[in-house]
Amino acid sequence: MPEHWANLDLHLDVNLDGSRLGRSLEDALRAAARAGRLPPGTRLPSSRALAADLGIARNTVADAYGQLAAEGWLTARTGAGTWVTETPTLAAAAPVEAAAPTAPRFRYDLRPGTPDLSAFPRREWLAAARRALAGVADHVLDYPDPRGLAQLREALSGYLARARGVDVEPDRIVVCAGFTHGLALLVEALRGRGASAVAVESHGLPEHRAVIADGGLRLAVLPVDSDGAVPDEAVLGGAGAALLTPAHQFPLGVTLAPGRRRVLTEWAADTGAVLIEDDYDGEFRYDRHPVGAMQALAPDHVVYGGTASKALAPGLRLGWLAVPARLLDEVVAAARGAGGGPDAVSQLTLAEFIASGGYDRQVRHARLAYRRRRDELVAMVGHGAHGVRVAGIAAGLHALIRVHSGQTEAEAIAAALRRDLAVAGLADYAAGQAAAGLVVGYARSLT
Amino acid sequence: MPEHWANLDLHLDVNLDGSRLGRSLEDALRAAARAGRLPPGTRLPSSRALAADLGIARNTVADAYGQLAAEGWLTARTGAGTWVTETPTLAAAAPVEAAAPTAPRFRYDLRPGTPDLSAFPRREWLAAARRALAGVADHVLDYPDPRGLAQLREALSGYLARARGVDVEPDRIVVCAGFTHGLALLVEALRGRGASAVAVESHGLPEHRAVIADGGLRLAVLPVDSDGAVPDEAVLGGAGAALLTPAHQFPLGVTLAPGRRRVLTEWAADTGAVLIEDDYDGEFRYDRHPVGAMQALAPDHVVYGGTASKALAPGLRLGWLAVPARLLDEVVAAARGAGGGPDAVSQLTLAEFIASGGYDRQVRHARLAYRRRRDELVAMVGHGAHGVRVAGIAAGLHALIRVHSGQTEAEAIAAALRRDLAVAGLADYAAGQAAAGLVVGYARSLT
Repeated sequence: MPEHWANLDLHLDVNLDGSRLGRSLEDALRAAARAGRLPPGTRLPSSRALAADLGIARNTVADAYGQLAAEGWLTARTGAGTWVTETPTLAAAAPVEAAAPTAPRFRYDLRPGTPDLSAFPRREWLAAARRALAGVADHVLDYPDPRGLAQLREALSGYLARARGVDVEPDRIVVCAGFTHGLALLVEALRGRGASAVAVESHGLPEHRAVIADGGLRLAVLPVDSDGAVPDEAVLGGAGAALLTPAHQFPLGVTLAPGRRRVLTEWAADTGAVLIEDDYDGEFRYDRHPVGAMQALAPDHVVYGGTASKALAPGLRLGWLAVPARLLDEVVAAARGAGGGPDAVSQLTLAEFIASGGYDRQVRHARLAYRRRRDELVAMVGHGAHGVRVAGIAAGLHALIRVHSGQTEAEAIAAALRRDLAVAGLADYAAGQAAAGLVVGYARSLT
Repeated sequence: MPEHWANLDLHLDVNLDGSRLGRSLEDALRAAARAGRLPPGTRLPSSRALAADLGIARNTVADAYGQLAAEGWLTARTGAGTWVTETPTLAAAAPVEAAAPTAPRFRYDLRPGTPDLSAFPRREWLAAARRALAGVADHVLDYPDPRGLAQLREALSGYLARARGVDVEPDRIVVCAGFTHGLALLVEALRGRGASAVAVESHGLPEHRAVIADGGLRLAVLPVDSDGAVPDEAVLGGAGAALLTPAHQFPLGVTLAPGRRRVLTEWAADTGAVLIEDDYDGEFRYDRHPVGAMQALAPDHVVYGGTASKALAPGLRLGWLAVPARLLDEVVAAARGAGGGPDAVSQLTLAEFIASGGYDRQVRHARLAYRRRRDELVAMVGHGAHGVRVAGIAAGLHALIRVHSGQTEAEAIAAALRRDLAVAGLADYAAGQAAAGLVVGYARSLT
C-alpha cells in the first residue's frame, strides 16, 4: 500500500461513524485536503479500492469524489485516477483574489478580481468618515443591528433603485462583509429551510462553491452558453436555489438573455426556490445602458447581492443583499449568529459617501478608466500574431481570451509568465470540464 | 392533539431522514425555534409522547431537549414540561448586547456588555485613520490576508505582551470581527479536527453557546465556584475544548484560581484539547495589577481571544485571537472561507492607534472612569435598605447583585423596571439552573 493511502486511512478512521457514510467520507476528505493533511498532488485510491477497503458501496465513494471534484478539491483525469488538486488549491494557497497583499511576484499582475486600488479616493473617504462621525448619536457605535446600520440601508435602497433598478425597501437590505460573506449567510438560511442543493454556473469563483459546500449544501452544475446559464430542468430539479451572474457572467463574460431570466424566475416562483444574483460588476457596462438587475423581475424570488469591492476597494469588506421577505428572518438570524458583519464606522462612511454623491462620481470615473484600459487591451491583443479572440468585453473588469488551437491553456499561461505577465485560466474557475481560455483582468494599469 | 403539536409534526417530517435521529431532531427543533416557526411560549410534547409519536427512543428526545435547554432555546420546568424559551430568545430578539441601536426603552439601561460609548475618541480615531491611510501602499486595500493585516498583527503582538502577558508572535495572531466571530472560526477549526464537544462555564453569554451549537459541537457544562470554573473530569472527558473567562468570569465575576489554571492547562496538554480564553475585559482590573492571561502558561494549548469592544466600541467589530501553531492552519482556513473579517481601513487605524500610544491612553482613561462608576454603584446599593451583596467588582464593567431572600430574580428585575432601570438577571446567562442575581453594567454613566 503506497504511503499516501496509509495517511488517508488514518483520518478516515477518525471521522467515519458508520452512519450517513457518503457525507462523512466527503467531509473527512474535504477537511483533510483543507488542512493540508492530504497535500496537493496526493493520488487517491480508486473508488473501487477505497470502497473495498472501507467495506462500503463503490457508489458512495464515487459520489464523494464527484462532489469534491465539483468543489475543486479533487481533480479527476478520465482513466488515470483522482488527485488532490495541485493548483489553485483553496487550502494551500490564498484565493486568486487574495494574492496581492503579499509581495507581488509578477511585474504585471492581470489576474482578475481586483479593481485599480490606486484609484481609491482616500481623501474623499476620510472626509466622508469625518462628516459621518460628527453627526451620529453614541448608540450607533454599539453592537450593530445584524442587518446593518439604518443609515446605510436607507442610502443603498435609493442607490440600488436608480443605478441597478433593484426594488427593495431598506428593511429588506442586509449589509454584509462582501458578497462571499453574504453568500455564507444565504447558505445558512437556505439549509435552515431544508434546501439540500444549490445550482451554480459551470464557471465561477471556486470560493463561492466552497462556501456552499462548507455550508452543507450540494452543488448542481448548470451549463453556460452564449445566452448565459442554461435553465436545465434536470439540474434545477433538486436545487433549492441557483447562484447566477446575470449582468456579466464570471468569467465567461456573457449576459443572461431576457428569455432565460423569465424561465428562471418562473422556476423560482413555481417551486419556492431562490435565485441568488451576484451583481459583482453590474455598474460597469460599456456598450449601452447597464443591464438592469434580474431582481426587479421577481423581488419575491431573487436575492440581489452587490459589493463595494469593485467601485471602491475589496479591503473595505462591504457588500449588501436585497432579500425577499420570506427569507429575511433566516438571513438576519444567520448574520446575528456569527457576528461577522462590517464595522459601524465603515458603514456610516459609505452611507455618507453615497448620500453626498461621492459614490456615483467614483463609479463614473472608474467606468471611464476601465473602458479605456479595455480598449488598450483589445488593441494589444488584436495586434498579436496569433489571431486570438477576445470575448466578454461589453462590461466589467476582465476579458476572456480564447487560446488558439496550437496551445493548451497551461502552455499559454506559462508563455505569459515568461513575459512576467500573470493571468488566470478558465480551468481555475470551472466546476467540471473547461474549454481552454485565459481570464485577463484589465482594471490595473499596465503602464 | 393540540395545535402546537401539529405544527411540530409538520416540520419534523421534513427534517427527519431516518438516520442519526438525535442530531436531526435537535437540528429540526433548533431551526424551527430560530425561524419563529415554533414561537416563544410554545409548549412541547413530553419526551415520552414525542418519542412514541415518532417511533424513536425516549432518550433520543430527552437528549435533544437537554441540549437545546443548555443552548437557551428551550426552558424546562421540573415536573411541568418544556417550552420554547420566552425571553430572552436568541431567535426572536436581538441579543441583550445588541438592544441599544434601537431606541432605548429605559431611562437607565444598566444591562451589561456595552462600554461608555460617549467616551469613544472620535477625533483621535479619525486622526489615526488619516495617518494610517497616508502611509500605506495600494495593495493593502486589496482582499485582505485572512489573518488580518500585518501592521495590526505586529502592533497587537507588542500590546498583548506588555498589557496582558500574552506570548504570541504576529504570525500566530488572527484578526477577527469581535470575539464571537473569532469563536465561530475556532468552532469550525475544532470540528475539522474531529472535536465533538466544547466545555463551557455554567454561566456565560448565550450567544457564545449558540455559536458552538450552530457549529455542530455539543455543549458540556462546567460548574463555577468562587475559584472560577471547576475542572470537573466527567465534564471535560468528552470535550475537545473548554471556553473560559479566567480574568473575570462573566457574569459571576470571580477570577480563575492559579491551581485551577494549572490543572486545566495540564488537561489540555495531556489530551490535546484546547483552552479558549475569552479575555473580554482583562484590561479593566481595579484591586491590584491586572491578572495576566492564562495563555502565557501554555501558549501551545490556549487560544487567547481579545476585543476592542470594551476599550473602544463594539461597533468597530475588531477582535483578535492568539492561536497555537498546531491549530493555526485550520483557523486561517475558516477565516478565509466565509470572508467575514474586518475591513482594512479599521485594521490600519487600530494599528496606528496602538502604535501611537492612543490605545493605552484610552484604556487608562476608561479604567479610571469605570472604577469611579463602580464605586458610585457600590455606594448606592450599599445605602439600600435590603442589605444586598455586591460581588465580582474587582474588575470589569459589571457587578453581580445577589437578590435578597424575600424576592425572586424576576420580581427584582420587575421592581427595577418600575424605576425605569433595566438590568439583566443571572437566568439570562445560565446554561442550566441558576441562582438568583442581578447583573448590572456600570460602564454607562447614570447621570
